[in-house]
Order: sequence, then C-alpha cells, then structure tokens
Amino acid sequence: MTTTLENRQFRLAARPVGMSQASDWQQTVETVRELADGDILVQTLYLSLDPAMRGWMNDAKSYIRPVAIGEVMRAGGVGVVLASRSAKFAVGEHVSGGLGVQQYWIGQAEDKAAAFYKIDPELAPLPTWLNTLGMPGMTAYFGLTEVGQPRAGETVVVSGAAGAVGQTVGQLARLLGCRAVGIAGGAAKCDFVVKELGFDACIDYKQASVRDGLKEHCPQGVDVYFDNVGGDILDTVLTRINRKARIVICGAISQYNNTSQVQGPANYLSLLVNRARMEGMVVFDYADRYPVAMAALGKWLQEGKIKSREDVVRGLENFPQALSMLFEGKNFGKLVLQLS
Amino acid sequence: MTTTLENRQFRLAARPVGMSQASDWQQTVETVRELADGDILVQTLYLSLDPAMRGWMNDAKSYIRPVAIGEVMRAGGVGVVLASRSAKFAVGEHVSGGLGVQQYWIGQAEDKAAAFYKIDPELAPLPTWLNTLGMPGMTAYFGLTEVGQPRAGETVVVSGAAGAVGQTVGQLARLLGCRAVGIAGGAAKCDFVVKELGFDACIDYKQASVRDGLKEHCPQGVDVYFDNVGGDILDTVLTRINRKARIVICGAISQYNNTSQVQGPANYLSLLVNRARMEGMVVFDYADRYPVAMAALGKWLQEGKIKSREDVVRGLENFPQALSMLFEGKNFGKLVLQLS
Repeated sequence: MTTTLENRQFRLAARPVGMSQASDWQQTVETVRELADGDILVQTLYLSLDPAMRGWMNDAKSYIRPVAIGEVMRAGGVGVVLASRSAKFAVGEHVSGGLGVQQYWIGQAEDKAAAFYKIDPELAPLPTWLNTLGMPGMTAYFGLTEVGQPRAGETVVVSGAAGAVGQTVGQLARLLGCRAVGIAGGAAKCDFVVKELGFDACIDYKQASVRDGLKEHCPQGVDVYFDNVGGDILDTVLTRINRKARIVICGAISQYNNTSQVQGPANYLSLLVNRARMEGMVVFDYADRYPVAMAALGKWLQEGKIKSREDVVRGLENFPQALSMLFEGKNFGKLVLQLS
Repeated sequence: MTTTLENRQFRLAARPVGMSQASDWQQTVETVRELADGDILVQTLYLSLDPAMRGWMNDAKSYIRPVAIGEVMRAGGVGVVLASRSAKFAVGEHVSGGLGVQQYWIGQAEDKAAAFYKIDPELAPLPTWLNTLGMPGMTAYFGLTEVGQPRAGETVVVSGAAGAVGQTVGQLARLLGCRAVGIAGGAAKCDFVVKELGFDACIDYKQASVRDGLKEHCPQGVDVYFDNVGGDILDTVLTRINRKARIVICGAISQYNNTSQVQGPANYLSLLVNRARMEGMVVFDYADRYPVAMAALGKWLQEGKIKSREDVVRGLENFPQALSMLFEGKNFGKLVLQLS
C-alpha cells in the first residue's frame, strides 16, 4: 500500500443484558497494514444486520462461537476488492462474506471464517446480495423446501413476513403452488406483503388477533409454519396446525432480548394431537448447495417472479441504533447498513 | 341369555378440574340385555389404566372425541367371550378392545370403537396383552422406530422408564444397538430398569439432578429422547441433545392435571441450535401394522429378550384411586385393574 488507510471498527465491549445499548460497543480506528502474500483488502460497501447477531453477543453455546469481548463484531457484508495478492480475487471485483462491522477487511483470501465469494453487481443490486441472494434468501429457500417441505395446495404461514427471510419464504411458497399467509406488524408491511409480494393474505398482529386472522385466512388450517419470531405468535399458530404439519424453527426474534427465561410454546402438545413436528434449521448446513438456490432465486428475481425489499440505513456510525431497529420491528424489509 | 347379569359401570359424572376425584364418577348398575344378531357379550378381566384417560375426560379437541358426561368411561381391556351371536368370536375366546370401565360389554362384534381382536393367553399372561403386546408396546415400538429413528450406537433417553411405554422403549433401544438411559422416580424403579430390564443407566429424578445425571450417563449427548412426561424434565433434556436429535412427544403426564397453562419447553430453541426436531405421535396411526409389532415383541418376550412388568390393582370399585396412582407416580410398571 502506498497510502495509509484508517479502518473504523465496532468491537464488542460488553455482553448485553436484554437489548444491546451504546455502551456494549467500542469504536476503534486501526491503520490498515501492508498486504502479505495471499491477502486481499476489501472495502465494505454494505453490511447485513440480522437478528442472529444478538445471539452472537451472548457467551453461550450455540451453532457458532460467540463474538469475543474486544473482537470486531461479526457481520456479513458485500464489498469491493481494493488490493489483492491472491489469484482468487482481482482488484475491482465484488465479494460477499464475513467482513465484520468495519470499513475494511484485510487477510487471507481463503480465510474460512470470512468465506468470501464473488458476486455479480449486474445481476442484482448489491443490497440484494445480502437479502434474496444472501443468507436470508438461502435460509428461506432451504428452510422452506428442506424442513417445511410444502406440497402444492397446502397453506404456508410465515411470521416476520416483510422481513428478510419472511418475504422470500412467502413468495417461494406461492411459486410452489401453496397458499401463503404472512404475519407482520403494521398496515404498511401487510399491504406490501400482499400487494407487492403477492401473498394471499397478511395478518397485522399489531391491529388484529392473530388467532382470528388465522381462522379467516387459513380456512384449511396451517400445514407449514415458518417461525421467525417465537413467543405468543408461535403459540397461537400451534392451535391452528393441521395433522402432520411442519413447523420450521428459524428464529425467535421476540425472545432474543429476554432477560428472564425464554417463553416456551405452551401449546406444544398440539404437536402430539396433530402428529406434527417442530424442527430447527441453521442455514450454514446447506452451504454446499447455496449455488443451486442462488441460481434459482437469481433467475426468479430477473424474471420478476420474486421481489426483494431492503431497508438501507447509511453510515457505519449508526450501527448500534440500526441494529436495535430489528428488535423494535422498525425495519421494513431486509435491514442493511450502507457505508459511506 | 337364560340368567340375568348385573353390569356394574363407572360413568363420567363431571369434567375434572385438575386431578380427578371421586365425585367425577357415577357408579351405575345395568342389567345385561339379550344378544341381538351379530352381538357378543364379553366379560372384562383386566382394564388398562393410562395417562391418556385424563385427557379423554376433558371437553377439548384432541386426537379422539372426549368421553361424554354420563357415558361409560372409555378404557381398553381384555376379556373373555361369554356369549356370541357372531361368527367372528366364539364363546371362551379371549379378546382385547375398548371394553370400558364396566364388568360386561355387549354389542356388535364388529363395533368400530371397541375394535376387538383375539388374543392368545398361552403366548403371554393376560395383563401383558395390555402392556408390551397392547397399546403401550405398540406406542413404544412405533414411536421409537418410526419417529425416534434410532441408529445403532446412538443414545436413547426415555422418561417414565419403569412405566408401560418407557420400559419397552428402553429395551427396544438396547435391542437396536443403542445406549438406553431411563429417567424414573425412586431407587426401586431405577434398580428395576437397570438390573431387570437391562438399561445402561437410570436417573432417579426424585433423588438427583436430571441435568447431572444426563451429563454422567450420556457422555456422548442425547440422540433420541422419548418423552412421556413433559415439564422440567423435557426442558432439561433439551439442553443435552445432539445435532439432529429427535424428540418423540408421546405424552406429558406432568401436565395433564394442570389447572393453569401447560408449561411449554423454554429451551425449545435448542432445536434450532442443534437442527433437531420434536415430533408428536399417536399410536392409532399405526394400527395397520400392529400385527408386525406384536409378532416381533411376542417373539422377544418368549425368548426373554424383553421383559414386561405390570402393576395389578384388584377390584372395579378401586378404579378412581387406581387411576390417580398414575399421576402420583405410584404405579410400578404398567397399571392394570383386575376385575374379580
């Protein structure tokens, strides 16, 4: 490098109790070092903000190790290669991977935790690579098809329907010949889900009883429930499931900031009565097959059969407040942070 | 009929709140009528007392219709044919089916609710036809093999291990090459489960921490958990499950007498972290294949590879108190009521 680059970063300073707050973060500035052999330098353009990030901040056994105190906060993102001493990526190419909450990423091109891969900004706008063509899209695709296993004619219900994963789950369900019913908070989100994304119906849990909504909009009962929220909504859906229903446990955003015990589904014995199943999924298990899902989703995006919506917040400095939006239901679509 | 038979019966008088009590029952005596064409008269010899009976007393949608107020309480049992005007069953033959809590059953031999089938008292003692060769055995066999799907070398944990279903689940798991760990209440039951039934270990939940017991006795984690109890034990097992674990929801005896809400599994997000599943089962779904399971279990019983233990209470008049034993953990083995 011939110029000196300053790299602003957000590091985990403390493990939050309940909702994360400003004091949980430490802002640091580092000078970007020289590249070693095999290294690349990537400039972060967009970061993905995800509910799962709240879990990574806890010191608990999970599907991925916790972020350490003092470590740059883990985040997926898309960026552009500014410098390269690797044959794998050339300067100017766009990549997606584990950039972290920072302006620049430097390290081995083959770094396993970062897991960079090239993306084509001509095929879809960069934020879409963090949405339908990124982890949320992969989660929707594999969670619905592999765990939910919907059959044409069945009814698929998804919570967080306007969110990153939910929007694709419902659209895929429609493409697979199912009735798609969303659950979302607020009239604007519900309108979008039905009018823009083409769901058959959407229940506004802030305005109406989810139980009544399910009765009205799922007259044949619920065959697949894709759960992103947990809590009372999961419990209510459990009262409306059909025999042999499949409940995909993808997340439980209503519970991630709990300071007391997680609310377990009191109606879980509906699984017994209905010979139904509740199954957890983690998208990383399907990594070998991401290319298949990306090809399919990319084609449907190009053809206009699937739409994506991102909610873009600008400025690295706004990371903490932007993250909080997720848990307050304030984002409308996949939440991404654009770095200036 | 040339003699007059008096038939003593227990009818549901009130829907219990919490634990059932004497006032929930009405004792009636009826004179047995003459047989019509196609009828049989069966004398009840043993009745099966099951946790599920508590659920049948509630006026709630379930896998089977509730027992109506004033109706003879539903119960499976074995009996002997005293009179027959059907070609299907001859006098002196032993049958198993829905006799109800009464001394005599009269009706069409083909009655669908009763669903009588012949049993061979030479193959196994009559109470065993209500245990290993009856619904508990069928539940254990299909719940474990079809829903739990254990593979040799895996660890199978079962609660209610000395009970009707649990005893067979653990023994089957051993026959399938698995490590079998029981959870039961009291040293006597645990001794029996290990020394008589051959489980690898048994955790006495009344004496020790289930969490510590699972750590000690399931060093490789839990691959299959066959749940008969629900409540805290289900929650604790959820903290010890392996990736892709299967939890069979067969029952939740700890919750059946709740007057408040059922305790949902607060640790259900372990399903997500571990890509595990929780699935309900109802034995009736496998009715077409009962003969297969009966043949296999019958052979293993004859060979001494599977043992059965029944807890026999005598006297129809003791039905209410005997039923309560189930929920107090007082029965030791499959609970049956012998009619004098």
